[in-house]
Amino acid sequence: MPLTQRIETAIQRAIATGQAGLAPTRLAAALDYATAPGGARIRPTILLSVARACGDDAPPLADAAAAALELIHCASLVHDDLPCFDDADTRRGKPSVHRAYSEPLAVLAGDSLIVMGFQTLARAAAQHPARAVALIDSLATRTGMPDGICAGQGWESEETIDLAAYHRSKTGALFIAATTMGAIAAGQEAEPWEELGDRIGEAFQVADDLRDALCSASDLGKPAGQDDLHGRPNAVAALGVRGAVARFDDVLGGAIASIPACPGEAALAGMVRAYADRLVPAVARQPVPGE
Amino acid sequence: MPLTQRIETAIQRAIATGQAGLAPTRLAAALDYATAPGGARIRPTILLSVARACGDDAPPLADAAAAALELIHCASLVHDDLPCFDDADTRRGKPSVHRAYSEPLAVLAGDSLIVMGFQTLARAAAQHPARAVALIDSLATRTGMPDGICAGQGWESEETIDLAAYHRSKTGALFIAATTMGAIAAGQEAEPWEELGDRIGEAFQVADDLRDALCSASDLGKPAGQDDLHGRPNAVAALGVRGAVARFDDVLGGAIASIPACPGEAALAGMVRAYADRLVPAVARQPVPGE
Repeated sequence: MPLTQRIETAIQRAIATGQAGLAPTRLAAALDYATAPGGARIRPTILLSVARACGDDAPPLADAAAAALELIHCASLVHDDLPCFDDADTRRGKPSVHRAYSEPLAVLAGDSLIVMGFQTLARAAAQHPARAVALIDSLATRTGMPDGICAGQGWESEETIDLAAYHRSKTGALFIAATTMGAIAAGQEAEPWEELGDRIGEAFQVADDLRDALCSASDLGKPAGQDDLHGRPNAVAALGVRGAVARFDDVLGGAIASIPACPGEAALAGMVRAYADRLVPAVARQPVPGE
Repeated sequence: MPLTQRIETAIQRAIATGQAGLAPTRLAAALDYATAPGGARIRPTILLSVARACGDDAPPLADAAAAALELIHCASLVHDDLPCFDDADTRRGKPSVHRAYSEPLAVLAGDSLIVMGFQTLARAAAQHPARAVALIDSLATRTGMPDGICAGQGWESEETIDLAAYHRSKTGALFIAATTMGAIAAGQEAEPWEELGDRIGEAFQVADDLRDALCSASDLGKPAGQDDLHGRPNAVAALGVRGAVARFDDVLGGAIASIPACPGEAALAGMVRAYADRLVPAVARQPVPGE
């Protein structure tokens, strides 16, 4: 089965479980709205690609891990869009959850999706309880405090930001979760896969800064120019467009070089490169007149 | 070790883990602020009391379960106090988290505490991974959608409320978690313990309605009269004070009668009654002049 289909099926199954029986209908609908149609599903795609490279001997657990990771990512988008953070009107080309459903339902949808992520893993644990526990611990580490995406967002409330810790937790954390959880789901050690996730996260952050600076809101499906607007540190401000593109290429090369020896190493390298190339807007690679 | 000490130690250990290393300091401080000093810790006390009644053969896992449940409860208070829900200025006699720290940090503290609850269970799993997985599933069921406290809060955004589902999920869910998780932590079946949690939850809801109607804000440590103010369904409006007290006594009797046969049955019954008696304000039991 193609990875995309495995991911969508696993997410839909999790959401349907959360809507079963006598559920409040608007919150139930908001769970769907926040998760479908999805974005690139890049994190669960990386997760399943690593699981495949490691032998993928427990596909139901890997699928649950992929769904859990994407549910946490979607939850973070819903909460990040809230008025007290980015106050974003749109996301993925449609109104953000709090605009479409209300602020209380956006808070609750995010909370419910976080919970659902962990529950999805617990419910897929039957054959491999120890792996499931390791997956839950890993996902929690990359989501909460002190090293997860909550910490990353929390850095924005500090007077002095530790930039490395900020980027590693805000953007890198869920990519590290993707690579390490893929390995754990297939019965492998997590640690050798951390560097790949860390570097993909860094490349992704640079690409995101380029898109934020160079693309229009309609291209992005969300407001553009947010880094400048909120005065957030970003690669384009620090390095310029050409410098940021060079940095992206450099980090991506390091990511691919860090892939541990495994049966599916070449296929995984090809997948990472193909995904990454789509992230950088074409305009960023065009020659600058006069140079 | 007294239950109170086990609970406080387990919560402090979890919070310390979330603050370790290079964490954003204000969010780290908000985690402490949201969880200490605590309220009555009634849910983890019930959980450990049930675990004891069932033999308590895995104390570290039971302690982790107690901490996890209280962390989720504290998270729900932080989010419920947000401006888009109750907009509460105070909680447990001090400013609410969003008043003390900011709204972004209150959202993130709640998110982090939810994650920490599941992580605490995963990290205590070593000796009993299957029990830990069952505990995580049970806690998630009582926290998220469609049957947990998120669902309960979600009912308040519906045009038509299913009152039974609303109360069972909003207040009952974490008491059902308390009794069933106590049993699971000690290696027993969860299902026979559901009724006890359900009835304690109902009694607690009635007692809460009585306190909201009869106590001052300074007695409560939070705003009083909120049910009337928000037009929320409540036992005092439906039954009057005397009727609500009679209902409380009736439900509590049923709760105690439902305790499954187990070594610590009598001690557990005594503990439930002692806790419950403290919940109903004395004024509610005073004779009404002229009656």
